[in-house]
Amino acid sequence: MLPSILSSPSSSSTSLLPFNYFTLYSPSSSLTNLPSLTYKTTIKKSTHNHSTRVQAMIEKETPVTQRPYTFLRESDEGGAEGSSSNANSVRARFEKMIREVQDSVCTALEEVDGGGKFKEDVWSRPGGGGGISRVLQDGNVFEKAGVNVSVVYGVMPPEAYRAARPVDNGNVKPGPIPFFAAGVSSVLHPKNPFAPTVHFNYRYFETDAPNDAPGAPRQWWFGGGTDLTPAYIFEEDVKHFHSVQKGACDKFDASFYPRFKKWCDDYFYIKHRGERRGLGGIFFDDLNDYDQEMLLSFSTECANSVIPAYIPIVEKRKDTPFTDEHKAWQQLRRGRYVEFNLVYDRGTTFGLKTGGRIESILVSLPLTARWEYDHQPVEGSEEWKLLDACINPKEWLH
Amino acid sequence: MLPSILSSPSSSSTSLLPFNYFTLYSPSSSLTNLPSLTYKTTIKKSTHNHSTRVQAMIEKETPVTQRPYTFLRESDEGGAEGSSSNANSVRARFEKMIREVQDSVCTALEEVDGGGKFKEDVWSRPGGGGGISRVLQDGNVFEKAGVNVSVVYGVMPPEAYRAARPVDNGNVKPGPIPFFAAGVSSVLHPKNPFAPTVHFNYRYFETDAPNDAPGAPRQWWFGGGTDLTPAYIFEEDVKHFHSVQKGACDKFDASFYPRFKKWCDDYFYIKHRGERRGLGGIFFDDLNDYDQEMLLSFSTECANSVIPAYIPIVEKRKDTPFTDEHKAWQQLRRGRYVEFNLVYDRGTTFGLKTGGRIESILVSLPLTARWEYDHQPVEGSEEWKLLDACINPKEWLH
Repeated sequence: MLPSILSSPSSSSTSLLPFNYFTLYSPSSSLTNLPSLTYKTTIKKSTHNHSTRVQAMIEKETPVTQRPYTFLRESDEGGAEGSSSNANSVRARFEKMIREVQDSVCTALEEVDGGGKFKEDVWSRPGGGGGISRVLQDGNVFEKAGVNVSVVYGVMPPEAYRAARPVDNGNVKPGPIPFFAAGVSSVLHPKNPFAPTVHFNYRYFETDAPNDAPGAPRQWWFGGGTDLTPAYIFEEDVKHFHSVQKGACDKFDASFYPRFKKWCDDYFYIKHRGERRGLGGIFFDDLNDYDQEMLLSFSTECANSVIPAYIPIVEKRKDTPFTDEHKAWQQLRRGRYVEFNLVYDRGTTFGLKTGGRIESILVSLPLTARWEYDHQPVEGSEEWKLLDACINPKEWLH
Repeated sequence: MLPSILSSPSSSSTSLLPFNYFTLYSPSSSLTNLPSLTYKTTIKKSTHNHSTRVQAMIEKETPVTQRPYTFLRESDEGGAEGSSSNANSVRARFEKMIREVQDSVCTALEEVDGGGKFKEDVWSRPGGGGGISRVLQDGNVFEKAGVNVSVVYGVMPPEAYRAARPVDNGNVKPGPIPFFAAGVSSVLHPKNPFAPTVHFNYRYFETDAPNDAPGAPRQWWFGGGTDLTPAYIFEEDVKHFHSVQKGACDKFDASFYPRFKKWCDDYFYIKHRGERRGLGGIFFDDLNDYDQEMLLSFSTECANSVIPAYIPIVEKRKDTPFTDEHKAWQQLRRGRYVEFNLVYDRGTTFGLKTGGRIESILVSLPLTARWEYDHQPVEGSEEWKLLDACINPKEWLH
């Protein structure tokens, strides 16, 4: 049996594997590797006698020049391309799906942007796994757009469990657990304050049986979501966005949309503000209490719904005239985005703690953000309406 | 005897009472009070069934229109102004000192700014304590300047200890402890990218003897520091700044400057970047292993050194011509400031967790900040030199 801490708590909103972990996470193996990753300069690292850093038990990544056919280990892909039944494994099909989604989303975004091009960084690890980071920065339409995929073979240290689990199981002292994870993750920040930010992330996770426990069961689960963060509410946009999410959910289970809509409102909660970062969408995690094939199809459907959910909105709003005041309000909401991601987002805080590739983790932050002391929108204003909807989540579809 | 968790660990760099706690901290008593503080509008709060919030055991503050003569409880000040020997207590003299420092620093800053004026918010609590927040925003010279004092009578919940202490004493389960705290805290962000940000914070802390332990010893300690965060290095500026700090230290103990300079470099460390947020200064905490009067004088000397350490630098740099590239680099360094404060600063993270007054806690954030994907300064450039000094702290005085 696996330690109980690894059982999938389907009835709770907690996440064993933190949100975003897979895709925005490309860790180095130790503190001493960080400078050479972060700055390709000759700055030498001082010896820092601070408290011991949690060691990420994943190999250091190596930049590569060509995208490999797959990031799976040979034992997973079964040798030559597609020659084995392993090519039909959930791992293999999930990787194929997220890489196709990365391609199609990037193509659609470059088309909308009409100028900006994605810059690509590819890396791999000697023992298997790797990733592709794509970032479009300072385009015509997008301030910053990141679309990442990654595949990770790793060992979760006990410290990682504690960071990943909001509930503290003080008595459980688990050992390291090998795992496989793959996911696509993306945050798109447009320039125009009337064009909303969108975030999506779909991921698949498996724990491997420990070496000393042959035949022990493998655990697997799916997580993900797509959520909208506008600075101003256009009700038709929000309804369109949520109805596409609901359409994807309803193809699989009528309970999914209401359940995952609420989960999304609960997850993206900035506690110290008493407000959500945006107007939600869907979010789910630790899903394994359905048929595995069904959940693979469901994740695929959700990921493929990002383009029809978002692109029409950004097309409609990207050229709307705006004032400095509209821009300043957007920047204040970007500040909230930063607060959520740095203080609460489990993937970000986990990645920072375990020595992840900082630039991949923090690509989710906006290009620019703003904090004004004690800013209070005028009651009844458009800014006030957005804030009200972030404090009191609404049902957009009736 | 007090619980061992309250003993002052003079040999370690950990802080029982978190940095900034006193002065940027003006908590409300429960989650439901937050919206009325944050937004003076009629937005009603939804019932949020999230995980239980840590209750701050300090009364809710009430805005007041006039600054009181003192925020001390009557039993502390001894009735009429100065009529009792309590007026000579360390509590009373520390409060007097920090309020004088707030006045003199704000006057000096308005003079340098030549246009911007501080906006003042005063609050008090029925059972004693209160504070004065002063913020100058979007002035001629300063983008955002906050200078806060506060006096807190509170009870520290066990959760607060855990947030406040980096070292986890898993076995110790302390009960709530009444405490007194007072401090001045300030962050000054100028507009010109050649004019550095400065932060200072001086604080005094006492635990009260538990009611059921008459005669139990009181614990007290001092903490604080002043540190400089430029976007560009002018060696003469950094040397001037450090030499004023050293001068203040040397009046009391020759070991202070080297010890507190290193403590500062260690504390303002952005672990996930492997770099400090700036070029340091001095930092100390939990200081009680010297004569109490001596430490009161030392804190006063340090707080009074802020103006001579900083004002000449900002006077010299406030009108230096700069390019968009200089400004963008300053904004990237502001992003690092945000990362440190939201992810690592114990006062900020503690304040957010316990339901503090958000606007007072987050006044330390810059007005604007920036995150570029994978930004790497050119080797040997001025930006590179700053980064190098943040990665490898230097001895500025030889």
